Amino acid sequence: MSDEKLLMTPGPTMIPTRVLEVMRRQIIHHRTENYERGFDELCENLKIVFQTKNTVMTFVSSGTGSMEAAIVNMFSPGDKVLAVSVGAFGDRFADIASIFGLEVQKLAVKWGEAADPAEIAAILDGDRERKIKGVLITHNETSTGVTNDIAAVGKLTAGTERLLIVDAISSLAGLELKMDEWGLDVVVTGSQKALMNAPGLAFAAVSEKGWAAREKSSLPKFYWDFKKYRNGILKQSENPPYTPAISLVLAQNEAVKMILEEGLENVFARHKKHALAAQQGVAALGLKLFPKQKDSSYVITAVLPPDGVEIGKVIKDMNVSFDVMVVGGQKHLKGKLLRIGHCGYFNRFDLIKTFSALELSLQKAGYAFEPGASVAAVQKAVAD
Amino acid sequence: MSDEKLLMTPGPTMIPTRVLEVMRRQIIHHRTENYERGFDELCENLKIVFQTKNTVMTFVSSGTGSMEAAIVNMFSPGDKVLAVSVGAFGDRFADIASIFGLEVQKLAVKWGEAADPAEIAAILDGDRERKIKGVLITHNETSTGVTNDIAAVGKLTAGTERLLIVDAISSLAGLELKMDEWGLDVVVTGSQKALMNAPGLAFAAVSEKGWAAREKSSLPKFYWDFKKYRNGILKQSENPPYTPAISLVLAQNEAVKMILEEGLENVFARHKKHALAAQQGVAALGLKLFPKQKDSSYVITAVLPPDGVEIGKVIKDMNVSFDVMVVGGQKHLKGKLLRIGHCGYFNRFDLIKTFSALELSLQKAGYAFEPGASVAAVQKAVAD
Repeated sequence: MSDEKLLMTPGPTMIPTRVLEVMRRQIIHHRTENYERGFDELCENLKIVFQTKNTVMTFVSSGTGSMEAAIVNMFSPGDKVLAVSVGAFGDRFADIASIFGLEVQKLAVKWGEAADPAEIAAILDGDRERKIKGVLITHNETSTGVTNDIAAVGKLTAGTERLLIVDAISSLAGLELKMDEWGLDVVVTGSQKALMNAPGLAFAAVSEKGWAAREKSSLPKFYWDFKKYRNGILKQSENPPYTPAISLVLAQNEAVKMILEEGLENVFARHKKHALAAQQGVAALGLKLFPKQKDSSYVITAVLPPDGVEIGKVIKDMNVSFDVMVVGGQKHLKGKLLRIGHCGYFNRFDLIKTFSALELSLQKAGYAFEPGASVAAVQKAVAD
Repeated sequence: MSDEKLLMTPGPTMIPTRVLEVMRRQIIHHRTENYERGFDELCENLKIVFQTKNTVMTFVSSGTGSMEAAIVNMFSPGDKVLAVSVGAFGDRFADIASIFGLEVQKLAVKWGEAADPAEIAAILDGDRERKIKGVLITHNETSTGVTNDIAAVGKLTAGTERLLIVDAISSLAGLELKMDEWGLDVVVTGSQKALMNAPGLAFAAVSEKGWAAREKSSLPKFYWDFKKYRNGILKQSENPPYTPAISLVLAQNEAVKMILEEGLENVFARHKKHALAAQQGVAALGLKLFPKQKDSSYVITAVLPPDGVEIGKVIKDMNVSFDVMVVGGQKHLKGKLLRIGHCGYFNRFDLIKTFSALELSLQKAGYAFEPGASVAAVQKAVAD
């Protein structure tokens, strides 16, 4: 058992050496040209990753903080929102909205399925008094390994007064997300998933419609006040408003550069290819995906364990014996899922190693399958 | 001009190599024994630094976030607080309280002076209906280089129903602060000052009286909910509630170990000795402190610039020509102060270098003084 683990988890994910080297540097002050140059570069490059013309703001925060920030900047107590939940993180978004006094209509989709845009459309169409001011939705739900069709949902809110607020924490820079083209009003994400950095930063971008809503929102906001961060970036006020996580910001700049060097489309293609390879590996083991194949995420693969196998023990063995970390299920799916992340900084050999470790641990657990089958299947799928 | 600067600023401050080495390590997952071991150790050691038996919570946040957290956990809209402000950060605390709907009575002390505990006592005594539910105060005000007498203020609220909320962001681990003995109810701080870490973490500890207030507080809280963090640490719920800034947390553990290895009392003595040395250096240059000597901080020295010298240019020259970074004044004191931080990870030679650079830059600016006078004075004061 070593200290260095291969994290095939839905975040944190592995950090490139180039990025770690930046974190290792002695601190610099944030009110200097050197820092500003790095931060400005990050801001510009994040626009490319968000596929937006809007300002992308950086917060010292976990991803969850940026979800709270979206709520307190866009809404007022009593505002009604439709919270579309397909799992634990969708539930969290609904919870945050409730706690801040919003009236939450929840569309709770069965875990393992994606939200049906037609169902969302029907709810919005049925809201004849236009009480629903916004839709909250998770792009990629790591708890179930399901990706929602955000482009389709965007069509329902674009050109209306309703806001579309997207939790893209586990998707951004791993899955295609076209903020402007899809008409998304708020997109939030975190540093520790496909953005290939350590956890500690969150990001948000807001559409023009969203900025207008910000002006009407009466929920109190200080630390999360989007306006201060945007005005700072636009050099209209102190930038940033509070001491930033300097090391993480500069490390993030390096990581985003790497993403752009690989090419955003190539990054998306890599995630898709490896997800499909993982699905082949799962099938070769005679196992089934938890979601329907069409809803299955390209950044995480959720697998139903074989009957009679205590999957928690398998996951632990992969970690202890082979230094490969994958995760189990959350909430009511505890002990009922195996989830393999393939998100951010990883390559074909990481995935092959993961299936190899999985095979070795499944064998120990007494599950019968053809040894090497999944490794061969993955290898075949990622060969070119 | 080099990339590596000696930061003699009121935060961020220099980071020890031991701590940077931890940040350089490949990420580990936070739901593992390895991470928990480090985090538990940090939690225990922070209690020593806070001088408290209370749980010390860690947040992914700037220091300002922890001030907001204190407000939303302790109070309800309409609650009246006395906000004691001796500078920019005291003003910020009052602003946060106002934005969250508290009724704020502000005691605005003239910049450069410490709050007079007798004046606070008079206000509290005059509040016969006991409308004032809490007192907000800055321990060390970096904008003016002034330290408030928190022990004395603690005596006014201890044993009453009133809460004492202390912003110790720039003081904790640099200046003596005895949370339990002084009867403080909430103490918040950040990672990037005397705690010798990169910015990105904030910390808070709450007294029993504070925890009782938390139960009554009706302000909405999710990301900042103290209860979730404490219950996590006590292993009563998911720990931590949201993805922590893993690299910064492990780095913080290393930094706090270094503080305890030096010995907390020795750390305080080092700060005091170097502050007094800096005061000697200032006097040797024929310059004056901005605060009264008795109020002058041990973590930052605020100096009035010589007449006719554009101090902004001197500060810039120290940075550009000598790679030593100090800062100017904030708000209405812009251009009217020189502030030298001596906080966290620094030693006598850093202070000597700073005064040497200051002398060289002051000479260039045409200020007349005996060359070497301040360097000699500092050297003498830190010799043993």
